[in-house]
Amino acid sequence: MMDRMPLLEKCASRITVNGTVFGDGAFGWIAGPCAVESRPQLEASAETMKRCGIGVLRGGLFKPRTSVYSFQGLQCEGIALVAEAKKKYGLAFISEVVDESSLQALLPVADILQIGSRNCLNYALLKLAGRYGRPVLLKRGFAVTMEEYLNAAEYLAASGCREILLCERGIRTVTEVTRFTLDLGGALWLKSRYPMPVIADPSHAAGDAALVSPLTLAAAAAGLDGVMLECSPSPECTRCDSRQQLTPDQLTGLKEQTDHLLKHCRGVR
Amino acid sequence: MMDRMPLLEKCASRITVNGTVFGDGAFGWIAGPCAVESRPQLEASAETMKRCGIGVLRGGLFKPRTSVYSFQGLQCEGIALVAEAKKKYGLAFISEVVDESSLQALLPVADILQIGSRNCLNYALLKLAGRYGRPVLLKRGFAVTMEEYLNAAEYLAASGCREILLCERGIRTVTEVTRFTLDLGGALWLKSRYPMPVIADPSHAAGDAALVSPLTLAAAAAGLDGVMLECSPSPECTRCDSRQQLTPDQLTGLKEQTDHLLKHCRGVR
Amino acid sequence: MMDRMPLLEKCASRITVNGTVFGDGAFGWIAGPCAVESRPQLEASAETMKRCGIGVLRGGLFKPRTSVYSFQGLQCEGIALVAEAKKKYGLAFISEVVDESSLQALLPVADILQIGSRNCLNYALLKLAGRYGRPVLLKRGFAVTMEEYLNAAEYLAASGCREILLCERGIRTVTEVTRFTLDLGGALWLKSRYPMPVIADPSHAAGDAALVSPLTLAAAAAGLDGVMLECSPSPECTRCDSRQQLTPDQLTGLKEQTDHLLKHCRGVR
Amino acid sequence: MMDRMPLLEKCASRITVNGTVFGDGAFGWIAGPCAVESRPQLEASAETMKRCGIGVLRGGLFKPRTSVYSFQGLQCEGIALVAEAKKKYGLAFISEVVDESSLQALLPVADILQIGSRNCLNYALLKLAGRYGRPVLLKRGFAVTMEEYLNAAEYLAASGCREILLCERGIRTVTEVTRFTLDLGGALWLKSRYPMPVIADPSHAAGDAALVSPLTLAAAAAGLDGVMLECSPSPECTRCDSRQQLTPDQLTGLKEQTDHLLKHCRGVR
Repeated sequence: MMDRMPLLEKCASRITVNGTVFGDGAFGWIAGPCAVESRPQLEASAETMKRCGIGVLRGGLFKPRTSVYSFQGLQCEGIALVAEAKKKYGLAFISEVVDESSLQALLPVADILQIGSRNCLNYALLKLAGRYGRPVLLKRGFAVTMEEYLNAAEYLAASGCREILLCERGIRTVTEVTRFTLDLGGALWLKSRYPMPVIADPSHAAGDAALVSPLTLAAAAAGLDGVMLECSPSPECTRCDSRQQLTPDQLTGLKEQTDHLLKHCRGVR
Repeated sequence: MMDRMPLLEKCASRITVNGTVFGDGAFGWIAGPCAVESRPQLEASAETMKRCGIGVLRGGLFKPRTSVYSFQGLQCEGIALVAEAKKKYGLAFISEVVDESSLQALLPVADILQIGSRNCLNYALLKLAGRYGRPVLLKRGFAVTMEEYLNAAEYLAASGCREILLCERGIRTVTEVTRFTLDLGGALWLKSRYPMPVIADPSHAAGDAALVSPLTLAAAAAGLDGVMLECSPSPECTRCDSRQQLTPDQLTGLKEQTDHLLKHCRGVR
Repeated sequence: MMDRMPLLEKCASRITVNGTVFGDGAFGWIAGPCAVESRPQLEASAETMKRCGIGVLRGGLFKPRTSVYSFQGLQCEGIALVAEAKKKYGLAFISEVVDESSLQALLPVADILQIGSRNCLNYALLKLAGRYGRPVLLKRGFAVTMEEYLNAAEYLAASGCREILLCERGIRTVTEVTRFTLDLGGALWLKSRYPMPVIADPSHAAGDAALVSPLTLAAAAAGLDGVMLECSPSPECTRCDSRQQLTPDQLTGLKEQTDHLLKHCRGVR
Repeated sequence: MMDRMPLLEKCASRITVNGTVFGDGAFGWIAGPCAVESRPQLEASAETMKRCGIGVLRGGLFKPRTSVYSFQGLQCEGIALVAEAKKKYGLAFISEVVDESSLQALLPVADILQIGSRNCLNYALLKLAGRYGRPVLLKRGFAVTMEEYLNAAEYLAASGCREILLCERGIRTVTEVTRFTLDLGGALWLKSRYPMPVIADPSHAAGDAALVSPLTLAAAAAGLDGVMLECSPSPECTRCDSRQQLTPDQLTGLKEQTDHLLKHCRGVR
């Protein structure tokens, strides 16, 4: 069934960004706030990443929010803040693109371009995002089959991208106590068939900070290639998705536990 | 839960396009091929619509296809064909917009702008599509909750649109013998709470021409405001979704049956 | 894929119970309270059915309730009430069996044995219920594929039953505003491939009395073989599922509308 | 929402069977063939368990199969084989009960009674299975919410059982490349709120032996209380679910890896 995706076979199995490696046995970390909100918030976040040894900062500027009346991100106003923080802390940056103008605005600061869950099958955007010689993180849509997901990745490949980072961020299921259901089995299947690195986003999958640590340890133990997490200097004050943000202390502890697990158990398999 | 959608209450309950009325008791028809493919195919389609008394022709020019290697539509090359057929047969036209450039290309010929299922939560596109003083048909995404769907409609309203045509086109479920599952109950619930007309797309819901007629009769009997159907002069030769296209004869028969049902039974409720 | 169900082909396409016919063009009605609760409630229900011209009374005695602390039905204590009401009003009766002892208890009064949604894949029960030479109504489980559903019906057939009445009662989907989603397309597909009559249960599908009437009209217009509805003399006082019960007046009105639709439009196809 | 389940709070957080402990920090193992098929197959399986240090043997005797024409298990004929193997190898045994007669047949040999996924909401069976002073493993149904699952467990508790072992065996989702989707997040949520131990069944969740090992390591790293796996002396020859059976060598390797992970990383949290 899954024929006609010839370019995926040619994609990179290892993606390196600012010293952070995803794939080929390496477990890469991306973390940061859901949305960039202010200079103090961004600086505190960047400082936490630096301290934890995390090289890639995440932070939304163009936020796809369910309600038009919710905070839509700082948009272009946040670009300068990001440029500043990146320089000061020596971090790479990833952020979501939602159309051509957001993509153009982000090009000067984004080391990885992110396609979000809701735009996973937005083929016009996929055709565009693959052209810039930059790694693209493609989140799986929350009700997207593997066949659709891989075909979406092939759209990126067809527009020139060979560094595609797949990201399982949870699918919509019957389970009502978590926001989404992290499909670890599906992510492992992807890894078993295609070269692209696959990471997990337990923050969006669970929607609950208390579940982020065990799901991250699970992803590491199972052999995925990294995680993308939300962490905020003061979760209770964030303007979006506050329940799922780790505190800096929680992130620090989780990073240590995961490093310990990877050190002792990664070679086992 | 569903608060903060103040503009939906102000939307039209009746939308009239080229004499075709959706809502306030009227049952409107949209039909035509999945994709515009050639002048003969489009002319034959337009002629069928005219003969059936259907005033709105559908036809994709910018097709969001699962595979990048599938036919992506005639795109800008098809615009002139459409303009010609519209004029010759006196029809209105609806087609899917997928980004700013497709929208600009379609403005000269599209009387209704369509947002497809995959772009239902593409907020950048919603913000754009509502600005042109033209009715927008918003298809429900195949795994989109009613809360998300209504909030997506509010995005259109917030960008200026007050003529929003909702369209239930089937959701992804456990049923494996049809492509999607037409959620008639959900469509009826929408009508019971909000003013916007709601139509059904049984062609995409069923993915099977044999089920299109009974589902259309069901939609009419239940009190929905219209249907959007796929019909092709030679279904077996179409370049996409051939299994779900009605033949012209099937469409003619279905139109007559539905008119009969509406005449005798619409007043019953 | 759907091979090895040889006995289904031999099942009846028309099932007649106490003058009520399901299938071969006839639209049969089953109605009554969710649960049998008391003599006055049951008598009032039976009287309503009689007045509406509905020949089959439904009423749960052994109720599978989500919580062990909810009313579990009158169980054996209700059998005598049912026998009395049947005789007085000349009605047939259908009720759910959940195990061998409930089946034995119901045999003296049940003209149709019902297997409920939660027990659709309870093969031990299916092997048992088909042995008694009595029609069996098999509700589709709320997350059961058509392949599983048909195989479940084959279990009934393999134990001797040839009068199997299929019943679409809604499946669990992303739609959050109705209890379940009535899969009309799936029900139509069943009818197109197999002889067994297929009816709808809009009461459980919608979980909302306001949607029961339009969904019933839809089922009739689409060509299904009947409906099973919940109706209670005083819906607000019932001990289970009160929101989805029609009042006697609503049922009377709906029966008239549907008869009108069937008279004028059934011959159309 | 999840009130009125008072007895679950009183359930055991640690269940010990034949020296195997589930819960309170211990990670318990259950393994064996999908179905008991013959003396040589059962003996070889038991010998493998013994060698791996696994104390609880699984093996179906009363198999709920999708098709009535598939192998339904050895049923009562297999009881003596099980008794023999248990004695010879000093193992505990778990097997699925599907009704009263299978339960009575299994009582002499089953140390844990299993309720399978399809019978998760079979309340008549739950009322029965809790009465025998024996631990009950309750598999989550493949489309059952947590509220329904916990209420089902409360049925067991209400009939007297206080040793309830919950088991996440995968839910039905949009993912088409695995049989089901292991809901690790949901299982962790259960553990965070209720005392009962929660284990995973990666064999049924994935339906693919290649994914069983990484999912088991994930379950151990995340902090679940054990696993239930399928292992067969010659997977290619088994009469059901052959694709998901581990070979004895694979099970041996997995057991070692998991023990290593638990030893080095369990104390980390």
